[in-house]
Amino acid sequence: MNGAESLVHTLLGSGVDVCFTNPGTSEMHFVAALDRIPGMKCVLGLQENIVTGAADGYWRMAEKPAATLLHCGPGLANGLAGLHDARRARSGIVNIVGDQAVYHRPFDAPLTADTEGWARGASAFVRTATKAEDVGADAAVAVQAARTSPGQVATLILPSDSSWNEGGVPAKALPVPAVPQADPHAVRNAARVLREKKNTLLLLGGLALREGAQKEAQRIAAATGAKLLAEGSNARIQRGRGRLMLDRVPYVNELAVKALESYEHIILVNAKEPIGFFGYPGRPSTFWAPGCQLHVLTRLEQDAESALRALAEELSAPAAAMPDPGPRPEAPRGALSPEGLAQAVAALMPEGSVIVDESVTYGRGFFPHTFAAPAHDWLQNCGGAIGYGPPVAVGAAIGAPGRRVIALQADGSAMYTPQALWTQAREKLPVTTVLLSNRKYQILIGEYRNVGANPGRTAMDMLDLGNPDIGWVQLANSMGVEAAQASTLEGLGDLMAQSFARPGPFLIELLI
Amino acid sequence: MNGAESLVHTLLGSGVDVCFTNPGTSEMHFVAALDRIPGMKCVLGLQENIVTGAADGYWRMAEKPAATLLHCGPGLANGLAGLHDARRARSGIVNIVGDQAVYHRPFDAPLTADTEGWARGASAFVRTATKAEDVGADAAVAVQAARTSPGQVATLILPSDSSWNEGGVPAKALPVPAVPQADPHAVRNAARVLREKKNTLLLLGGLALREGAQKEAQRIAAATGAKLLAEGSNARIQRGRGRLMLDRVPYVNELAVKALESYEHIILVNAKEPIGFFGYPGRPSTFWAPGCQLHVLTRLEQDAESALRALAEELSAPAAAMPDPGPRPEAPRGALSPEGLAQAVAALMPEGSVIVDESVTYGRGFFPHTFAAPAHDWLQNCGGAIGYGPPVAVGAAIGAPGRRVIALQADGSAMYTPQALWTQAREKLPVTTVLLSNRKYQILIGEYRNVGANPGRTAMDMLDLGNPDIGWVQLANSMGVEAAQASTLEGLGDLMAQSFARPGPFLIELLI
Repeated sequence: MNGAESLVHTLLGSGVDVCFTNPGTSEMHFVAALDRIPGMKCVLGLQENIVTGAADGYWRMAEKPAATLLHCGPGLANGLAGLHDARRARSGIVNIVGDQAVYHRPFDAPLTADTEGWARGASAFVRTATKAEDVGADAAVAVQAARTSPGQVATLILPSDSSWNEGGVPAKALPVPAVPQADPHAVRNAARVLREKKNTLLLLGGLALREGAQKEAQRIAAATGAKLLAEGSNARIQRGRGRLMLDRVPYVNELAVKALESYEHIILVNAKEPIGFFGYPGRPSTFWAPGCQLHVLTRLEQDAESALRALAEELSAPAAAMPDPGPRPEAPRGALSPEGLAQAVAALMPEGSVIVDESVTYGRGFFPHTFAAPAHDWLQNCGGAIGYGPPVAVGAAIGAPGRRVIALQADGSAMYTPQALWTQAREKLPVTTVLLSNRKYQILIGEYRNVGANPGRTAMDMLDLGNPDIGWVQLANSMGVEAAQASTLEGLGDLMAQSFARPGPFLIELLI
Repeated sequence: MNGAESLVHTLLGSGVDVCFTNPGTSEMHFVAALDRIPGMKCVLGLQENIVTGAADGYWRMAEKPAATLLHCGPGLANGLAGLHDARRARSGIVNIVGDQAVYHRPFDAPLTADTEGWARGASAFVRTATKAEDVGADAAVAVQAARTSPGQVATLILPSDSSWNEGGVPAKALPVPAVPQADPHAVRNAARVLREKKNTLLLLGGLALREGAQKEAQRIAAATGAKLLAEGSNARIQRGRGRLMLDRVPYVNELAVKALESYEHIILVNAKEPIGFFGYPGRPSTFWAPGCQLHVLTRLEQDAESALRALAEELSAPAAAMPDPGPRPEAPRGALSPEGLAQAVAALMPEGSVIVDESVTYGRGFFPHTFAAPAHDWLQNCGGAIGYGPPVAVGAAIGAPGRRVIALQADGSAMYTPQALWTQAREKLPVTTVLLSNRKYQILIGEYRNVGANPGRTAMDMLDLGNPDIGWVQLANSMGVEAAQASTLEGLGDLMAQSFARPGPFLIELLI
């Protein structure tokens, strides 16, 4: 058995049975092993951010890691933005990167690069499997690292001779490390704050946004009057009927400061302290009010649901009903607006839909209008590297079979990863992309005005995506995805309903 | 004056007047400075490899660096493959990357990443301008580093507060470091080898492939019987009538070993020793024959033309006429073939065309069929990160105004960087792309067979680009580029002639 075969056996034995791939020459023995050994679903992406973004989306829905197969050096580099977003979303990925044969590396062949160095900035774990005999054991450790709470990017670098040499030994799955529990002192401290103080916020992140944790948070809120809020960007929120009506920390600096100004205490539950995406001249980096105290109930890697339950019990909080969001919205009519789009999604989405949200400026107010939708999941970009949406939609669809994925996708961002449409077509994935075509980097035009000026000709040349306009229907068709335009809410609703009735992908170019 | 303004003034004063851009929020003050200060041509790319690849192509033709404008962290990561290829092509680039404000970095905001660490693997020079007062001086050093022979990627990281703070001081241009001359001992040693030994090869790389150096190499070859060959991949060869009829070291391992087996001495002129792109089981990493001696006339950074002239004089070699390649080929007719395509290019290209060659497997034999073309330049992928072609075509067109760019482009590679078509349309660049549509990763199918097996279903799912077929005419049209299909040499010739008569870009999908 060669090293590559031991790798495939080890991955399958560790429960990793989906591999997102973009192979090159140095990975051919790995490809051959995947061909010979049954059991791995292999999904091709035509650029590496499709691969890494899909692995991110897969983790978020399947709650277990996929593997990747990336080409050496620059192939990894092409997927780093997707890995960066996955790292920020706390997604587990077994990121496998081919490399030059160990003995060939000193010749500094054209594709030779600092693969380990590039991997490190986006990985919690990096290991190079330098011998065929070790590949199996190294892979088992990488899977364990990927599954370590809250989920980690574990990069395994596979020199081609470690793949092709004989002597491979499949390794048994290593145990998934237990999720660390909250410190009892932290629970008691949070209870003390909630009992004694007013104006307290529970800021929920990560797994605190799943249904079970939400029920415990609702008990606490109902018993104490504390308010609940989600982080600004969240890997996966379970939302809609039967879940909390949670809003999130606003993206815009002034609005975020305003949203938090009344709180004297913020209890962090799998959440980071609320800070700005960027620094701005004369504005604060942190969003909490002066004098506000931050308390940690659970760190990012700790068990939010059990900590919230312990906290509710410490407070003797009775069971509490989840809030009633009121009736489901009707499908709206008339001119397009952000609220109208959100209502259309709420009105028409199939139960159990997965929303992949890269709507950027257009989508800042979507949350309140979708509280009364059927139960669904909402995925956001946690790392800020744009283009996350189309690949994450691929992975979410594969990680949540039978569920409709609705991608709310800004045009400028989509142009970083349009190749994902091809994979959606090849795999016949039930992804409905609502492409928000405003033909500009709207967020940057806003940021530019913050600089204190209106953009002139040179600046607009860098902020405007028109001239030429991108034809999204043609672009989708060119990659095998059916597509059509809509410019009214009725048109949007018609196309959404049509697309939900089809098994494969569809793109709606929304002329906003 | 703020730091960003001092940066723009310093760049312009140092002769850098083209900036390829893909900005984000942290770069808005740099964008504003570019807007306020006239003189910089700003060209938008919709993904960062378009930006870095264009800067590579620009250097190759303009022989001076362009600047880039990349977004922090993952934005840089998205452009690393283009920088890797530029590094291998020895192209000079002033690679400017925005970043978090210095004081905001400790908060570890979502887009925060190890920008310096990622830059290092693709740069000869990395500096973070941590104070507005220093930005001008740091930029002048970066331009100097980019222009240091043979050309280097110089990364200047620009935290947003270094941009917006007042106190910027424009810096004067620093002198371009002199190109090091060859060691006189190396010249005498090469002369000795050429006088005393038979079976000697001059292996030419880098600037040894420009017209002036070729004339000196021809003197030496004519006087001594030495053979001349180019490296396997070359940033820019001046070719066609009046230039050498140079072939190159073959890509395929066995063919390269065979091409070099008769040489007992190889004299390297701005060339690396000939080695394989990859290691393969049981095959050599190096291509020279056992017992063959390698000699260095000039290292990569040394002046090839003056060294070759000194060598010719040491040998008392008389002036020698350049070889006559025979008559220009007629436009071929009939079924498509690699030879036919090469002949069509040779027959129809305008004088002074720039060929951007990412033809991969289909193009391995193009060289001999284009010796009798009019004088032209031929650019290749030196780093092996695929997708180099479409962006390098953008930069070559801007770096060589008035000249037709002909991009011979494999389909699988083009799918890494299709966004370059949009920039070609926006800038109305005279780029004719001949898109070689074979709907598979042909090179990998060959490599897979080398593993010793025919690909099965799982492997073909990773090597085949059909299902769905990519519609290149639609894809080009969606980004504003006119396009049409050809399936015969006549059809190809008609479309090439049409495209050469138009001012802007055109894509010919060649169904091979």
